[in-house]
Amino acid sequence: MTSLTEQARALNPAAVHAAHKLIQPYIHRTPLLTCKTLDTIASTPQTPEALTGTPFEGRTPACPRFRFFFKCENFQRIGAFKARGAFHALLRLIEERGEDEVRQRGVITHSSGNHAQALALAASTLDIPAYIVMPKISTPSKIAGTRSHGAEVIFSGSTSVEREAVVAEIQAKTNAILVPPYDHFNIICGQGTTALELEAQHAEQTGSGTLNAIITPVGGGGLNAGVATYFSDKPQTKVFGAEPSFEGADDCRRGLLSGKRIEAVSTLTIGDGLRTPVGLLNWEVISNKEKVAGVFAVTEEQIKATMRLVLERMKVFVEPSAVVGLAVCLFDEDFRRIVDKEGGAPGWDVAVVFSGGNTTVEAIAKLFG
Amino acid sequence: MTSLTEQARALNPAAVHAAHKLIQPYIHRTPLLTCKTLDTIASTPQTPEALTGTPFEGRTPACPRFRFFFKCENFQRIGAFKARGAFHALLRLIEERGEDEVRQRGVITHSSGNHAQALALAASTLDIPAYIVMPKISTPSKIAGTRSHGAEVIFSGSTSVEREAVVAEIQAKTNAILVPPYDHFNIICGQGTTALELEAQHAEQTGSGTLNAIITPVGGGGLNAGVATYFSDKPQTKVFGAEPSFEGADDCRRGLLSGKRIEAVSTLTIGDGLRTPVGLLNWEVISNKEKVAGVFAVTEEQIKATMRLVLERMKVFVEPSAVVGLAVCLFDEDFRRIVDKEGGAPGWDVAVVFSGGNTTVEAIAKLFG
Repeated sequence: MTSLTEQARALNPAAVHAAHKLIQPYIHRTPLLTCKTLDTIASTPQTPEALTGTPFEGRTPACPRFRFFFKCENFQRIGAFKARGAFHALLRLIEERGEDEVRQRGVITHSSGNHAQALALAASTLDIPAYIVMPKISTPSKIAGTRSHGAEVIFSGSTSVEREAVVAEIQAKTNAILVPPYDHFNIICGQGTTALELEAQHAEQTGSGTLNAIITPVGGGGLNAGVATYFSDKPQTKVFGAEPSFEGADDCRRGLLSGKRIEAVSTLTIGDGLRTPVGLLNWEVISNKEKVAGVFAVTEEQIKATMRLVLERMKVFVEPSAVVGLAVCLFDEDFRRIVDKEGGAPGWDVAVVFSGGNTTVEAIAKLFG
Repeated sequence: MTSLTEQARALNPAAVHAAHKLIQPYIHRTPLLTCKTLDTIASTPQTPEALTGTPFEGRTPACPRFRFFFKCENFQRIGAFKARGAFHALLRLIEERGEDEVRQRGVITHSSGNHAQALALAASTLDIPAYIVMPKISTPSKIAGTRSHGAEVIFSGSTSVEREAVVAEIQAKTNAILVPPYDHFNIICGQGTTALELEAQHAEQTGSGTLNAIITPVGGGGLNAGVATYFSDKPQTKVFGAEPSFEGADDCRRGLLSGKRIEAVSTLTIGDGLRTPVGLLNWEVISNKEKVAGVFAVTEEQIKATMRLVLERMKVFVEPSAVVGLAVCLFDEDFRRIVDKEGGAPGWDVAVVFSGGNTTVEAIAKLFG
């Protein structure tokens, strides 16, 4: 494709609408849920004691009022929003190169997570051979999940160098087309369809009330960039991002502070979908202040506390990565102050994207046992 | 009220319709969800090896076809269907005795579980004082939950003799009216509204297709008796019950076999909402073969395996008691043979009631850690 700048310029709401039209038959319109208990908890000021030992110590706690709308992509096919981007990328490949070429060459990616399963599902649905390079140490359930969609799993070492070497080897043999997990125009447009749907659902549920903000997790940045693309001509809806802070997983937030994208991250945050640095094209979107109003970071303990609330109070099963946006709403005093100041007494309608639900009871046991 | 036989006769669909009309403003119309993954798993025959060591060893596995419709009462207010019965009982009390008398005397119950929170919520909503007798050893979160709805919590010992003594003591002081958790006409009618709603939702979703069966957990039997009452004039929809078998928790199933209600149970099954024996009035309904077609029991391991599927695959957070009906569908060859034979090639539309979702991440950790 064309240069990054040109691609970034082409990322506009019309591109997301077009993506939605294409993928709609293949994806779920996931529910947009509300939860009064979480509204109440988030709309209660934190105690000064709760701020002790945080960067907000000593500050007067903000009094924001939240009305949440949870976009439950954990109920999406394969249990995560990634199905949107994968279907979109493959449908565009077929458009651009023709069915015969794509089916003959197949597609390839390296991923140990939700993108692997998403690409495997999209490929099997569209009758395209898929090669998924996964680290040998991937959890057996993820390997089994990827295989269950008919993809061929090839094992590699864990580093990106090792993974890419295996990808190159398979490509040399098969000529398979690489479908990257997030740093790609069509993936971004596909993930952006989350925003298009939730905007319509919010309007249905509120009688066309104003959606004031939306917050999504930021890993590679495909979801956040897609959502920001969709809302880029609607300044009344502010887009925010959320990251774990553990071991520098907040590369996007830190990059925005320094004005320069951070290229490498090495973190074992429990938000395992958010361990990658933001992609190049995604950075073009997210670092545009007109498109993304801010990115915030939360601690591992805050992620765990939020996960507990979503599981126990909302009764919805999510993976740790999914709740970082809600954790920002609950715990980040900078963000809460924005909602307090800008939302005032009526408060804000805030859409929170739960990005996925692919975890296991053993993982929950490890977190809370 | 009148004799058991007369009360049982008065338990008819019209009584459930009347209950629904009364409680509708106070309860959630919980969603009726489908899940193709669970349909596929349940519609795959068990392997002969999987039957080794079970009562079905050596039998040719059945080939039933299930289309599930999950009535998610874990999303009900206070996280369980019990809100229906509690609101109905209190609204009827007010009708019968007048607001003034009920508000002056208050209501009382003993429960360490979902009924406690349900009665506390209904009472606070209707401005009635509530006294809840809970065993001292109740989990702190349940005590806090009950108090958070404004009820006065009074502690007692754990045996039913100790609990009842404390109830009598409080009643002597306050003249509070006892609202039993399940063995009561108005409670049964309230719980039966679950059936009324799900029947309508099934018709909406399938274009008025036939609902062939519905299966619910059986503890005290209020939910199952209520559902059976509602469907009692619709022979095309068969009602089934499900219990844990651990330490004799399957009192209802065993009672039906022997033709006599079992009066006492002492079990620590993980299905902690199902540790009580079936109530007297509930037994009148459930032991009527015209109303309930059968009750089946599942092991602790089967409950755990089912819970894992519901959490990990369906992404819905449920308590162990909630999944015993689905566990019967997945594992009981007697039940699966019925669906196979009677459903034939087209299979059955089966509604499964998920009764509640009040568990904790620590409890999950204990089960799966």
